Amino acid sequence: MLAEIISIGNELLNGNTVNSNATYISKKLHENGIITAYIQVVGDVAAAIRQALDLTLTRSDVILLTGGLGPTPDDITRDVVADYFGRKLIFNEQIYNNLKKRFARRGIPMPEVNRNQAMLPEGVELIPNRNGSALGMVFRRKEKFVFVMPGVPMEMKGMIDDTVIPRLREICPECRVQVDFIRTTGLAESVIYQKIENGLSQFTSFEIAFLPKFAGVDLRVVRKGEDIPNRKKFEKFLKLLDDEIGDAIYAREDIELEEILGNLLRERKITISVAESLTGGLVEHKLTQIPGSSDYFVGGIVSYSNQAKMELLGVKAASLKKYGAVSEQVAKEMAEGVRKRFGAEIGISTTGIAGPTGATASKPVGLVYLALSAKDKLIAQKRLFSQDRNSVKERSAQAALELARRYLLRLPIK
Amino acid sequence: MLAEIISIGNELLNGNTVNSNATYISKKLHENGIITAYIQVVGDVAAAIRQALDLTLTRSDVILLTGGLGPTPDDITRDVVADYFGRKLIFNEQIYNNLKKRFARRGIPMPEVNRNQAMLPEGVELIPNRNGSALGMVFRRKEKFVFVMPGVPMEMKGMIDDTVIPRLREICPECRVQVDFIRTTGLAESVIYQKIENGLSQFTSFEIAFLPKFAGVDLRVVRKGEDIPNRKKFEKFLKLLDDEIGDAIYAREDIELEEILGNLLRERKITISVAESLTGGLVEHKLTQIPGSSDYFVGGIVSYSNQAKMELLGVKAASLKKYGAVSEQVAKEMAEGVRKRFGAEIGISTTGIAGPTGATASKPVGLVYLALSAKDKLIAQKRLFSQDRNSVKERSAQAALELARRYLLRLPIK
Repeated sequence: MLAEIISIGNELLNGNTVNSNATYISKKLHENGIITAYIQVVGDVAAAIRQALDLTLTRSDVILLTGGLGPTPDDITRDVVADYFGRKLIFNEQIYNNLKKRFARRGIPMPEVNRNQAMLPEGVELIPNRNGSALGMVFRRKEKFVFVMPGVPMEMKGMIDDTVIPRLREICPECRVQVDFIRTTGLAESVIYQKIENGLSQFTSFEIAFLPKFAGVDLRVVRKGEDIPNRKKFEKFLKLLDDEIGDAIYAREDIELEEILGNLLRERKITISVAESLTGGLVEHKLTQIPGSSDYFVGGIVSYSNQAKMELLGVKAASLKKYGAVSEQVAKEMAEGVRKRFGAEIGISTTGIAGPTGATASKPVGLVYLALSAKDKLIAQKRLFSQDRNSVKERSAQAALELARRYLLRLPIK
Repeated sequence: MLAEIISIGNELLNGNTVNSNATYISKKLHENGIITAYIQVVGDVAAAIRQALDLTLTRSDVILLTGGLGPTPDDITRDVVADYFGRKLIFNEQIYNNLKKRFARRGIPMPEVNRNQAMLPEGVELIPNRNGSALGMVFRRKEKFVFVMPGVPMEMKGMIDDTVIPRLREICPECRVQVDFIRTTGLAESVIYQKIENGLSQFTSFEIAFLPKFAGVDLRVVRKGEDIPNRKKFEKFLKLLDDEIGDAIYAREDIELEEILGNLLRERKITISVAESLTGGLVEHKLTQIPGSSDYFVGGIVSYSNQAKMELLGVKAASLKKYGAVSEQVAKEMAEGVRKRFGAEIGISTTGIAGPTGATASKPVGLVYLALSAKDKLIAQKRLFSQDRNSVKERSAQAALELARRYLLRLPIK
């Protein structure tokens, strides 16, 4: 079963908007064993939409079309598609009343222009919208399905999750796949590949993708058919990963490191504080992206100047003079200082050179020291990250979070 | 002149990779007066690439094709396109030697597989690549141009900027446009529109786009033909904006608020420090994204707990008890405290409820107080932001930076 996405909207053609809708849809399809073979992007132009439909019906089985269902005059998708499939638009009183109620609940009178949204193609299956006023539609031509959805991401996502995916699972039960994520940090893609390359020959029926990001490399594993119930085989695969790269794995599901760390801290009732130099607030920003992080994160200090390092974190003037601000010794004193200052059980710290300026002969851009202080432990790590300022900040922040996770799980720290 | 983008790569069809290349290219084309009418995304499949070329040559004048020029066997674009246009691949010794030198400079022997990249279509114009080893190519069919580029974003961007755009300016001098950005914060898109709607009738020949983001609304103005040299008309337009929404405008170019603020601080030799509660490090992360920010940013404190607010920032226990942590009084004491603690000239602070938990009957999710302290000033602002945790953090951080900008420029603060 081949799928095709047709994204409609001028904003996708002038650089205003990244087509993240198509990425979301193709990811969901992929997780359900359906291959997206083509994506077409066209403007809000009737002839272009018709041409896209002509082409897609010659080559694809499931067509997912988004955009142009709003109430304003540039939203022409409903009219064009209905006409293309030979359906008249008729006024749907029930839908009209629902729309009015929707606006009434928000305490605003319904603009007359929204009446359009109750003009719907005769006899067509409608897709409910829990996040907005435009309804989706399902058209059929012989064995082919055309799902028409709004372009507003939240509305489209609701329809994909609630209606389209369950429907496709019914239409194609044999498409079913099992998708697993293994998330790693600290090893390069090529290193991971080298380590597991030989072992992979036993798992050629698994589709394994390496997804490199600043924060680490994710492995996405898709299993089909007999491989899905074969737990033994998958466990053997996980053992291969554990044996070869287990030390770099922080999650066996699609979850962020800051959430893993947060859960560990909450379970153990341990509090954490952070002293940041080059990461400039990013470690704390990540920690506080997780709802409820105030249960374990008490606060931290961004000490960009040497003076702040001394006065707020108790870093010794002598250490700054002897080793410099970017050094193992200062990282340790920062972690120790912030832990004591906030009365937290753990303190972590970052100091380094984010670039593009600030490098010296002995301290290049990307040189970073991380440290962790606890009652029973004081440890530092040296890292050298490449690339630009943002990437150095991101990699350093991830390394600091990973250091805390490793400490809590008593994993070796190098 | 109509343009079309063909993006080639399986990673664009399984949800791995957002097609940000197409967004970049269409933005650059738009800024140069060229309309992108279609985008096609196809996999690394010869028949699909050929079909995409068949279609595009019936409807578009300039075709920009990216992806599949790497050295590995799944990179088939060079072969397919050369064959499509009836060009033989021939070994180019000079290019081969350049490739070898490239690897030698990095101190690694060239893998044999990279020899492919010196097999190039006979008689075709090559596009230099300052960021990688794959060369681009320009094919012509009658009046139509097909630019073939790598899919690696940095390599593609270099070719677009260095070669493709200058070339298109030559091909279509009459396409030329002038693009200006006006960046605002603090007003909703609909409010801006209402305020300037009537005035816009004098500028119907300007193409004006409203680009809403968490941090504010950008206006993008595209002018053509006679409007480009007509400075008077553009100044009249800017005056309309100044009169109606001038108070919300922080930049008349495409530059971030944290950079504007940073430049002001550097010019005036003023230092800043930050006390964050709900923003959890984001204000400081934004400030430190700007290279050289250590010139004016000395550091700050993330005080997530009440204890940290008292002990590190000197917030009074009585204030916390009487007004609560999310209050004007506590915001002011935080700003004052951080300024004194860091010995900075300005202190700014944020406190609020990011959600989804933490709301009370009188303090809903999205309630935020911002404050600024300086020797001559102590002022707070109340805001109510809607939407999710991330959006509340982003909007609050932007509001805190804007508060500092307004103070420095002695603009009214409400």
